[in-house]
Amino acid sequence: MNMTDQMMNMMSADMMEMSMDMKLMQECMEACMAAEQATTMCADAASGDNMGKMMSMCATTADMTNTMMRMMMRPMGYSMEPMMAMLQATMMMTRACADECMMHAEMSDHAKMCAEVCMNCASACEAMMASMKMA
Amino acid sequence: MNMTDQMMNMMSADMMEMSMDMKLMQECMEACMAAEQATTMCADAASGDNMGKMMSMCATTADMTNTMMRMMMRPMGYSMEPMMAMLQATMMMTRACADECMMHAEMSDHAKMCAEVCMNCASACEAMMASMKMA
Amino acid sequence: MNMTDQMMNMMSADMMEMSMDMKLMQECMEACMAAEQATTMCADAASGDNMGKMMSMCATTADMTNTMMRMMMRPMGYSMEPMMAMLQATMMMTRACADECMMHAEMSDHAKMCAEVCMNCASACEAMMASMKMA
Amino acid sequence: MNMTDQMMNMMSADMMEMSMDMKLMQECMEACMAAEQATTMCADAASGDNMGKMMSMCATTADMTNTMMRMMMRPMGYSMEPMMAMLQATMMMTRACADECMMHAEMSDHAKMCAEVCMNCASACEAMMASMKMA
Repeated sequence: MNMTDQMMNMMSADMMEMSMDMKLMQECMEACMAAEQATTMCADAASGDNMGKMMSMCATTADMTNTMMRMMMRPMGYSMEPMMAMLQATMMMTRACADECMMHAEMSDHAKMCAEVCMNCASACEAMMASMKMA
Repeated sequence: MNMTDQMMNMMSADMMEMSMDMKLMQECMEACMAAEQATTMCADAASGDNMGKMMSMCATTADMTNTMMRMMMRPMGYSMEPMMAMLQATMMMTRACADECMMHAEMSDHAKMCAEVCMNCASACEAMMASMKMA
Repeated sequence: MNMTDQMMNMMSADMMEMSMDMKLMQECMEACMAAEQATTMCADAASGDNMGKMMSMCATTADMTNTMMRMMMRPMGYSMEPMMAMLQATMMMTRACADECMMHAEMSDHAKMCAEVCMNCASACEAMMASMKMA
Repeated sequence: MNMTDQMMNMMSADMMEMSMDMKLMQECMEACMAAEQATTMCADAASGDNMGKMMSMCATTADMTNTMMRMMMRPMGYSMEPMMAMLQATMMMTRACADECMMHAEMSDHAKMCAEVCMNCASACEAMMASMKMA
């Protein structure tokens, strides 16, 4: 069992009494981490003409996905409405960022992979939100 | 003219063609900065029994308000829907954080001031959103 | 008295027993905040050829100055050696970033102002370190 | 090959001409990510008397390890002296944080694991610095 799994097990214990789907949450955290990394690298590689919008959106996506991940890692302060709103915002930002990156996918491997990782993050946020609405 | 004003002037130039209310945006940025500082300090001072929830919410509010401020400072990547969603999330988080801090306001000067600064940030986000809906 | 001054007054009370120079610390915090803002905006504006290195350095400087400011805002965890090391790292990064921005100062107002704000932050970190060595 | 490996492969290509040890750098990034997660969770769980110092140090360690990871993920702006200084600062902070967490390890599983993850991060930063000095 690796460290991340150990950490998630501890979190599960903290959240036993809350009706959160821990499997979806772990997937969402991991998708956010991957998105923070991919967008940080994609922004860094995005120099040259016509890359300014993608670079800027990637920088903001990196900050939002890090904030989203940290929010999920702090069960003591869970508050459903702000968390749903932050999942919504992260889903919209990662989708918008993926759309922009796709426009540069043919010229840049970073942008191509970043678009995929961002789409995956958007889906993970959406699945997490859906499970919270049902709870 | 101080540095912040100079920076805002440069941003205004960048955003001339966008229909953003620069005065409301500057107020919103400053309210976010103040909230990041107040929540960082309030979380730090929040040791002792029954303070765990406030500390956790303040930590997340600090991350969200910093992310909100940075998003506004990156005009190259402006995208209306994700920005509206992030303003909504920040408004809900700062309000929830203020409610929690108010419960400790009698015992803690940090919590009392943090509640005020967070309420002010929530109002600034709301005003910014309202101006964007009209645009 | 504005909110930042109020917050600083509360911090002074927390740190009465520590031998920290509060005036220098407040200047250092404010210089870090200004540097986070200036580098975030400068990175955003830095599209086009030959701007990649400046953009990348500004992005890292924004993260380091935010981290430096937050560290100073958490008196409960003050630990002299890591703080001195982080002041040293922030001083070196802001100086290196200022040098890079200066190379673009003629073409970009953002870069010109960012260089000044970064140099100011480097000086504030140096002054803070000097006062801690004497303590 | 997972996404992180793919990203690292792209970075390796970016850094072919630099004399960086990519294996040590990947280990250092992963150790920083793990430390950001462990300290975020440990800080969140650290309510109650006598936990204030640990909570505060974990919060700063989370910010520093995130900043360290992002710096390594931006090869366009690599600058050896600031990176060595930031590795030094991160090593000292994670060590100081681990020492504090160890004092609570018997009472808290979060603190026990956090201490281990922080020590591992300190070692990874030290190994990375050593390889850069030889280069």
